[in-house]
Amino acid sequence: MRALAVEKVDGQARLAALHTGHGIVETPVFMPVGTQGAVKAVLQRDLSEMGAQMLLANAYHLFLRPGDGLIREMGGIQRFAGWDGAVLTDSGGYQIFSLGVLRKIEEEGVTFQSHIDGSKHFLTPERIVEVQENLGADVCMCLDECVAYPSSHAYTGASAERTTRWARRCGAAKKTPSLLFAVVQGGMYADLRRRCAEGLLEIGFDGYALGGFSVGEPKEVMWEMVDEVIGLLPPEKPRYLMGVGFPEDIVEGVRKGVDMFDCVIPTRHARNGSLFTRAGRINIKHARYATDAGPIDASCGCYACSRFSRSYLRHLFMARELSSYYLNTVHNLFFYMGFLRRIRASIAEGRFEEFYKTFMSEWKGGETYDGSSICDG
Amino acid sequence: MRALAVEKVDGQARLAALHTGHGIVETPVFMPVGTQGAVKAVLQRDLSEMGAQMLLANAYHLFLRPGDGLIREMGGIQRFAGWDGAVLTDSGGYQIFSLGVLRKIEEEGVTFQSHIDGSKHFLTPERIVEVQENLGADVCMCLDECVAYPSSHAYTGASAERTTRWARRCGAAKKTPSLLFAVVQGGMYADLRRRCAEGLLEIGFDGYALGGFSVGEPKEVMWEMVDEVIGLLPPEKPRYLMGVGFPEDIVEGVRKGVDMFDCVIPTRHARNGSLFTRAGRINIKHARYATDAGPIDASCGCYACSRFSRSYLRHLFMARELSSYYLNTVHNLFFYMGFLRRIRASIAEGRFEEFYKTFMSEWKGGETYDGSSICDG
Repeated sequence: MRALAVEKVDGQARLAALHTGHGIVETPVFMPVGTQGAVKAVLQRDLSEMGAQMLLANAYHLFLRPGDGLIREMGGIQRFAGWDGAVLTDSGGYQIFSLGVLRKIEEEGVTFQSHIDGSKHFLTPERIVEVQENLGADVCMCLDECVAYPSSHAYTGASAERTTRWARRCGAAKKTPSLLFAVVQGGMYADLRRRCAEGLLEIGFDGYALGGFSVGEPKEVMWEMVDEVIGLLPPEKPRYLMGVGFPEDIVEGVRKGVDMFDCVIPTRHARNGSLFTRAGRINIKHARYATDAGPIDASCGCYACSRFSRSYLRHLFMARELSSYYLNTVHNLFFYMGFLRRIRASIAEGRFEEFYKTFMSEWKGGETYDGSSICDG
Repeated sequence: MRALAVEKVDGQARLAALHTGHGIVETPVFMPVGTQGAVKAVLQRDLSEMGAQMLLANAYHLFLRPGDGLIREMGGIQRFAGWDGAVLTDSGGYQIFSLGVLRKIEEEGVTFQSHIDGSKHFLTPERIVEVQENLGADVCMCLDECVAYPSSHAYTGASAERTTRWARRCGAAKKTPSLLFAVVQGGMYADLRRRCAEGLLEIGFDGYALGGFSVGEPKEVMWEMVDEVIGLLPPEKPRYLMGVGFPEDIVEGVRKGVDMFDCVIPTRHARNGSLFTRAGRINIKHARYATDAGPIDASCGCYACSRFSRSYLRHLFMARELSSYYLNTVHNLFFYMGFLRRIRASIAEGRFEEFYKTFMSEWKGGETYDGSSICDG
């Protein structure tokens, strides 16, 4: 049986069912980010209630704490975290390569120091697969190198070739029936992206991810690279655009044929007070909301909008109450889940292009994100 | 109609119904502490689900942020905070007097500097009542001075007399039908406690609180003071022991005839990983729980115990996930609410003394609270 059953194609947009070890995931899907085995500030029951079917967790983080062996002993990530749905684990390549001077890349693997306690670790492509199998992920990701932007053609090319060789070793190391996706790298060079995709296709994987974006490149360059690669990918395999993004990016990605997305934006922005509404983003800390008796978004059915005013939510945020992070996150994820449902409905009904145009003409990004950060790790 | 309808007396323990502007509160009651108009880390729906009928909020904190005028404009604390039940507001005397050099006490009132921004404020007994009426509290507290421990007989006596005069002014300033409780002070001097109680009884209030405890005094001294005062209080008026305490303190207080309790212990301890179980307290951060697949307390029906293992809860705590604070707090408050229900049932069935003895012989305080603090303010 194929992992992906495509049900409907509308332009390049696809409605499909991804079969996993923990249920069917309807795509296009947005995966809330649960880096450490928990989506920050919310609970598993909220995620179920809002219709999340698949979460992302991070193999690097869970390898360091509490350890993949411990999670295997506790019955795998789903049982450990009390989550009934599917889980995709990122290899942690992005996190490891973000460590800068704390890591060293060699053909055999990567040496790095823990961001938690400075302890030294060596991870090979084979071990990264084992970690993810110990975690019991439904979808595992090959180890890849995410190059900085900008990087030279020479370095990017050599790195993408190593990523391809690492992917082959990941495939060979695979022992369980979980799905294994490879990551197309190649920086912002079209020829390198194509060459990497062709190399990975030759090996053959259960799905293909487009990685190495959101590293500071202009957005049109990212879309150019996506266009280059996506036409090469077989229609029967899932396509995953990693770490993207804003609603306008998701709808754009779907239009190009992407099936899967993940991003810290809804959760991280929530903890910074930046809330998504149909009319764009607002920042709840603004003084104008001090006596605003209305909900965040009158058309939203989440617990925060059904029960609390902007005035109260602003108070909670200003007073740094923990429930502020909870309510803001519930709202933003609820918005994203509803947004993806609307995208899927429009494909099912053959009116995605109309949905896309209406959305793009009406959507306002809203207030600028102020950048003060609470890290997702 | 009297505010308190005593339904059953068992020894000195009383089962009663406190009639408030927002429903009937069954006593003995434990009020979760929602200092800033939110019980830290949990949500109003959780509090309703676990059977909380009355919350405590703090007039001093809400006066400073977001302001009692704003909350009045938004319809009062219940509407503002989306809470259907009753609310008692502490005057904030304890917080103001804790400010030390930042405050000055005079007969007319108290001058103090905000702990948030250093701004200077002057509060009179009359204004404190107005603040609480603006908040829409169901039970307001008179302004009182909580003296340090130890304090001289002379200072404590003069202070308790001023607290009594302030209480008279609070009573005269009262404009709405909400209940007004006075606070019996007098430090750790039996004669001063009695004199203060008699002075307040002469004025007459809707209820009487015993304040000025948990300031470092030996516990037996506190109970001595409670014994001195409680015999003087009229049986038809509610009695509130402020800021107390551990389960063993609550059951002791009930045995002496106390009806109402509040304390940050269940919520603050939760955020430090200290969890209440029928067998005593445990600290979830201990390494022994790393691979413990059982719930916090197998006899508990809270969301944390129904869904998650000690192993996962320890991981969340060690990883500083926000959901750790949420789940721990839900559990501890659920424990307290269940504990108070069992106390009320035992009074209703005329077997409180048996309940008391069994509890006191079986209860182990458990692991010592490690003292690392996240402040409730």
